[in-house]
Amino acid sequence: MAFAGVSGTIGGAGPLALLHGGAWAIPDTALADHQEGLAEALAAAQFALSDARPAIDAVTRIVAALEGHGAFDAGCGAMLNRAGDVELDAGLMDGPTGRYGGVMAVQRLAHPIRVAYDLLQHGNGQAALLAGDGAEAFAEREGHTLVANETLICERERQRYAEHRAEADVDSSDSFLPDNAPSDTVGALVRDAEGRLAAATSTGGMTGRRSGRVGDSPIIGAGTFADNGTCAVSATGDGEVFMRWLAGHEIHARMRHAGQSLADAAEHVVQVDLAPNGGSGGLVAIDRDGNVVMPFSCEGMYRGVQCEGDPPRTAIYR
Amino acid sequence: MAFAGVSGTIGGAGPLALLHGGAWAIPDTALADHQEGLAEALAAAQFALSDARPAIDAVTRIVAALEGHGAFDAGCGAMLNRAGDVELDAGLMDGPTGRYGGVMAVQRLAHPIRVAYDLLQHGNGQAALLAGDGAEAFAEREGHTLVANETLICERERQRYAEHRAEADVDSSDSFLPDNAPSDTVGALVRDAEGRLAAATSTGGMTGRRSGRVGDSPIIGAGTFADNGTCAVSATGDGEVFMRWLAGHEIHARMRHAGQSLADAAEHVVQVDLAPNGGSGGLVAIDRDGNVVMPFSCEGMYRGVQCEGDPPRTAIYR
Repeated sequence: MAFAGVSGTIGGAGPLALLHGGAWAIPDTALADHQEGLAEALAAAQFALSDARPAIDAVTRIVAALEGHGAFDAGCGAMLNRAGDVELDAGLMDGPTGRYGGVMAVQRLAHPIRVAYDLLQHGNGQAALLAGDGAEAFAEREGHTLVANETLICERERQRYAEHRAEADVDSSDSFLPDNAPSDTVGALVRDAEGRLAAATSTGGMTGRRSGRVGDSPIIGAGTFADNGTCAVSATGDGEVFMRWLAGHEIHARMRHAGQSLADAAEHVVQVDLAPNGGSGGLVAIDRDGNVVMPFSCEGMYRGVQCEGDPPRTAIYR
Repeated sequence: MAFAGVSGTIGGAGPLALLHGGAWAIPDTALADHQEGLAEALAAAQFALSDARPAIDAVTRIVAALEGHGAFDAGCGAMLNRAGDVELDAGLMDGPTGRYGGVMAVQRLAHPIRVAYDLLQHGNGQAALLAGDGAEAFAEREGHTLVANETLICERERQRYAEHRAEADVDSSDSFLPDNAPSDTVGALVRDAEGRLAAATSTGGMTGRRSGRVGDSPIIGAGTFADNGTCAVSATGDGEVFMRWLAGHEIHARMRHAGQSLADAAEHVVQVDLAPNGGSGGLVAIDRDGNVVMPFSCEGMYRGVQCEGDPPRTAIYR
């Protein structure tokens, strides 16, 4: 079966939330923590759906739950860059309006997705993508508390950083990415009761990456995309490759211009465009009819589905 | 005629360079300076073409000439953000390989396009998009000199900033963009003697914009895109709208999935997707057969064409 686990047409016409918590060869030692984090986020999803929140509000709450849990590479569990700092990216997009917001390379925000949401709400078309200090200044103005970078660093990632650094030839390069770097980015999609789609993605990048590196997560059309005419998409994987192929927008374009189904479009992008070109990883995608696909090209992808009022469903492997 | 000025099928199978220097209602007082800057960049184009440089090298040289001239909103002529600082974005993409590089929100680089080029050359897939201080640290490591921000501020833009600021209600907002903000972004496309396509774009944003704001220029698939199977594109205009519609990648997708010509695809994106949705501006685009289009939805767009060995051609209005 091409899309095992929780894919297919599910949830009928009702509200529906999907989420992912990274796609890689997840070690057994990390399973319990990840499952607990997924469960918490699915509970947040159920709350948002039952409260009849707009899709864009719901994805923000779900991703904020994933950022806050600590199991994932987002928010306070983020991996450390070459300098040993947490540096976060997040983006989201509203399907009915095409509005979006993204923050990149921020170091003092516990919940970058909430700041991206504020940017979407208050941007007025003036600024939808903000980087670094400017993004943090905007956040402070919007009432978010800036935190010290150290408070976002957890012991697990401090250790991972130390191990990677010890193995690397640090002097010869301005980054020391391991092979098969974990991709623990988080994301959520929602179709709400009125049929509105939304997508949100948040990440802490990879251990040892260059300072200032921005991946596909906050980039509209790459790791995050939503258009009510076609689909909503949130991706996790080798960000540079997902950006080059415009993973989210390419699925949209295949549906819009080639008349492909969500499943065919998403499968092609993940297995033909991305995987053979160095883009290991996966994505979750939904269309307005409630079709759900979660293709991935690596060993496993943490993923979950919450239909309003139903028990949550999760899957990791194929 | 849909594409006046220098559009059409030109240059036969020979090497060809296109460039733009912004799309807006250009005041008469700025004409001479812009025309001189275009002429210098076209001379750089002629040199690069006659020297048989690869397309990606040629677009870098052309855009570096535009960044260095001072007439345009890029490099040392850049407009100032709300804080009164120069903050630059640049990106480029190589059509045959899909490699790309981009730097965002950098304050101490006179030629951000050259740093984006280095990122493309040495990125090894590890990092293709860098923001802020991290981008500047990479640049320094690659041998670029970091300059004080003040050295990038020209008198013309200091005055423009002071005028906008005096007219704005500065305290009520974290930006003070004027209506019909000038869009003086620069870009270049090249098809070289071996048929390789490349695109490059560089910008200083708009006067009074939020600090940290990143527009479409460095974002692959938005303001800059190149794929030898379809087209190369460089855009200038309301960046937030060009990002939402993925202007460059949408032209590519229409050619690839809907079988449209370059002219039809580009015309649709500029006049139907962008212009009615607040996305005033324009773009230059080229396909591998040497078809050239330069559609815009505003009063004028500075644009030029250089076929190897021919006299340069330029146009502003329709």
